[in-house]
Amino acid sequence: MTKEIIREMKERVFQANLQLPNWGLVKLTWGNVSEINRELGVIVIKPSGVDYQAMTAEQMVVVDLDGNPLEKSYRPSSDLPTHVYLYKHFANIKAVVHTHSTNAVAWAQAGRSLPVYGTTHADTFYGEVPITRHLTSEEVIEAYEWNTGKVIVETFENQNLDPLAIPAVLVNGHGPFTWGTTTQKAIENNLVLDECCQMAQMTEAVRSNAEKLPQYVLDKHYYRKHGVNAYYGQN
Amino acid sequence: MTKEIIREMKERVFQANLQLPNWGLVKLTWGNVSEINRELGVIVIKPSGVDYQAMTAEQMVVVDLDGNPLEKSYRPSSDLPTHVYLYKHFANIKAVVHTHSTNAVAWAQAGRSLPVYGTTHADTFYGEVPITRHLTSEEVIEAYEWNTGKVIVETFENQNLDPLAIPAVLVNGHGPFTWGTTTQKAIENNLVLDECCQMAQMTEAVRSNAEKLPQYVLDKHYYRKHGVNAYYGQN
Amino acid sequence: MTKEIIREMKERVFQANLQLPNWGLVKLTWGNVSEINRELGVIVIKPSGVDYQAMTAEQMVVVDLDGNPLEKSYRPSSDLPTHVYLYKHFANIKAVVHTHSTNAVAWAQAGRSLPVYGTTHADTFYGEVPITRHLTSEEVIEAYEWNTGKVIVETFENQNLDPLAIPAVLVNGHGPFTWGTTTQKAIENNLVLDECCQMAQMTEAVRSNAEKLPQYVLDKHYYRKHGVNAYYGQN
Amino acid sequence: MTKEIIREMKERVFQANLQLPNWGLVKLTWGNVSEINRELGVIVIKPSGVDYQAMTAEQMVVVDLDGNPLEKSYRPSSDLPTHVYLYKHFANIKAVVHTHSTNAVAWAQAGRSLPVYGTTHADTFYGEVPITRHLTSEEVIEAYEWNTGKVIVETFENQNLDPLAIPAVLVNGHGPFTWGTTTQKAIENNLVLDECCQMAQMTEAVRSNAEKLPQYVLDKHYYRKHGVNAYYGQN
Repeated sequence: MTKEIIREMKERVFQANLQLPNWGLVKLTWGNVSEINRELGVIVIKPSGVDYQAMTAEQMVVVDLDGNPLEKSYRPSSDLPTHVYLYKHFANIKAVVHTHSTNAVAWAQAGRSLPVYGTTHADTFYGEVPITRHLTSEEVIEAYEWNTGKVIVETFENQNLDPLAIPAVLVNGHGPFTWGTTTQKAIENNLVLDECCQMAQMTEAVRSNAEKLPQYVLDKHYYRKHGVNAYYGQN
Repeated sequence: MTKEIIREMKERVFQANLQLPNWGLVKLTWGNVSEINRELGVIVIKPSGVDYQAMTAEQMVVVDLDGNPLEKSYRPSSDLPTHVYLYKHFANIKAVVHTHSTNAVAWAQAGRSLPVYGTTHADTFYGEVPITRHLTSEEVIEAYEWNTGKVIVETFENQNLDPLAIPAVLVNGHGPFTWGTTTQKAIENNLVLDECCQMAQMTEAVRSNAEKLPQYVLDKHYYRKHGVNAYYGQN
Repeated sequence: MTKEIIREMKERVFQANLQLPNWGLVKLTWGNVSEINRELGVIVIKPSGVDYQAMTAEQMVVVDLDGNPLEKSYRPSSDLPTHVYLYKHFANIKAVVHTHSTNAVAWAQAGRSLPVYGTTHADTFYGEVPITRHLTSEEVIEAYEWNTGKVIVETFENQNLDPLAIPAVLVNGHGPFTWGTTTQKAIENNLVLDECCQMAQMTEAVRSNAEKLPQYVLDKHYYRKHGVNAYYGQN
Repeated sequence: MTKEIIREMKERVFQANLQLPNWGLVKLTWGNVSEINRELGVIVIKPSGVDYQAMTAEQMVVVDLDGNPLEKSYRPSSDLPTHVYLYKHFANIKAVVHTHSTNAVAWAQAGRSLPVYGTTHADTFYGEVPITRHLTSEEVIEAYEWNTGKVIVETFENQNLDPLAIPAVLVNGHGPFTWGTTTQKAIENNLVLDECCQMAQMTEAVRSNAEKLPQYVLDKHYYRKHGVNAYYGQN
């Protein structure tokens, strides 16, 4: 039973990792997806630096909630401690995705949070997607990946943001992390973030002082897709 | 007979919806196409939030001219009231298309109408593609999608524009709606609009004070493809 | 014999027309390729406004050197008079190509000739790709397509340019025309022009006062591929 | 034995050359890859100006360490002397790649070295990717391709750069050369360089005074993938 659940997790994590290059969000091996099952105490994540063409579902790495290996297998993605930290502090997320998608990286490198310029953004993110501070030299040396998770969570806490309402962050000088209540949602959020970053850059190119979307339109678009009064889709 | 006509409408609307991601105009489920048959009193539109890979022609939703369902079936696209409003006020249009195509959204988010910089634009749109005003908070709360149709029509009326001569609009902070005398024309107009938005952005990047196309060239290009003296194509 | 030559011309023109959308230079039906056989007194050109998916080699239109039809067949591309004019005045060209490729159109709409910023440009074009003036209102009304050819030739004559050394032009507010000593070269020149337009725009974005390529590097690159001392390729 | 080694070199060089257009780094025939076997005294390089569709592994050209042909065969890439010069001066490189990839050319044409804006860059290049000076007129006339190698090596020597730590350069007004300890690494470095050039341009578009990546993050990212303490990947 547990075995079957883990097999399914591996299959989903594998498929999600393959989807990222198909969507143009990942080049070479620059991305990783994980999924958590909190009841089982299990996280499944992509192995580190394995070529996407050669990768199989079986190679996905199974670790416990602290990131310790539960099977003799491949080395997990080097970003695993960031995923673990996020799972420990964002209680309701089920999957984490990291990429170096071109447009989101550009905003991360620019050190800017992503403004809400339109409904494409509002349909998925209830407000600006925040930018983290840089890690300090000490944080980098001590535990780089773990502390990457720490500055993400700190950013949400300091700005009083709900990680389910804004399931994405731009890590300063690095790139995007997204998450979600399903693995599918988490990779879709990565796609939406990259697309909104591209749209926002072009918006500013077309008009340097572009207006933000009015709050009441943001409310409308977000809540027609999320929450108890949502009426988008078939459910 | 009627049944056969509706089956054909469903097939055309289905194929048009599939064409949009193939042309790069739609990501995930961000688009919708509808077609009207005014004699039969029927509109066919994409179901809301259904994955393009899983979608079938049979799932297209059939409603009456006020948007009321005529079959027990899927929930229609949440943008249906906008389509209904446009069909009620733009007498001769047969299809409506909405996307979040990247370049057109950038202009919509910038709150700018699209200037006529060249013949690519003039071949399809007889003048600037207008930008709407933002909806008011009251309009959003009262009936968001219906009032989106209202501000589009208001924009055409206030500027005295012919919706058949300029079969496209940029909704402020949102994105493009296009239409046409056939479903094929309506989706092509969406493609042309997005392409012209990209070209215009690059034109301004290359020369900040780029000149508009002279009116007599606009006239020439538009009328060699449209109207009684058209001589482009095989008809 | 003549019949066989024309059949081969049709096949080449057909294949070249198909290549343009594959290279991303043409959307919908926005492009046309022709080829001339001066000995036979024959030009073969794409039919007007025919969908690329449905098009066949047999449908290519055969006209004489003044553009008069030699077969009962499809209507030729509406840009045929431009092609005819170019063949009459540029003695050694064998094929003409017109597209609305995105990047070249952006420069054409900006009304700027394309500066020589690098060797990619110099490998194909021996100097700036010129921009034409706008046609006058009278020229447009009198014979738009014919006079488009006229302003292109006028541009080359006024600036004393060799159409074989710079086999391309940007028509102001419109887009690129390219040509060549073979049909293959003519479509490749269209690709190179569009690519150089993209590179030049990005060059200026990265450095607003970018330097032009030194003349001696331009000489070197152009002449290692062209003329009696060329040493690129296998011939 | 030697014959088998050379056959395998040809196959790798052939596959690497094909990979470049698949990754969007090469249009037409604008690129070349070579590989060296210093023990055998052999370099294998792409033939000059051969169409990628028609090219076979057998056609790869075998030359000695001075670039003299070792087989009666095709003419080697005209850039061969640049490759030879690099192999003579960069002791530990095994492969060299040259392309005209769009984004890297834009930076080369702008005459700018590529700043380190983020971790995507730091994962592969330990510092700015340098720009060369222009060749002098004399250098171009005397031995253009050989002297292109010379200015590359001069750039690394003058700035005291390690070609294994920064396996890439932008040749002023021309484009990128990259190299590596394997042929696969060398072509991947070309991809990374182009991607980082695109990201950097967009970073500056989004924020004109974007900060460089802190040195301690650069150190961290570079050394988690390179050197004795690397912990990325499966080895």
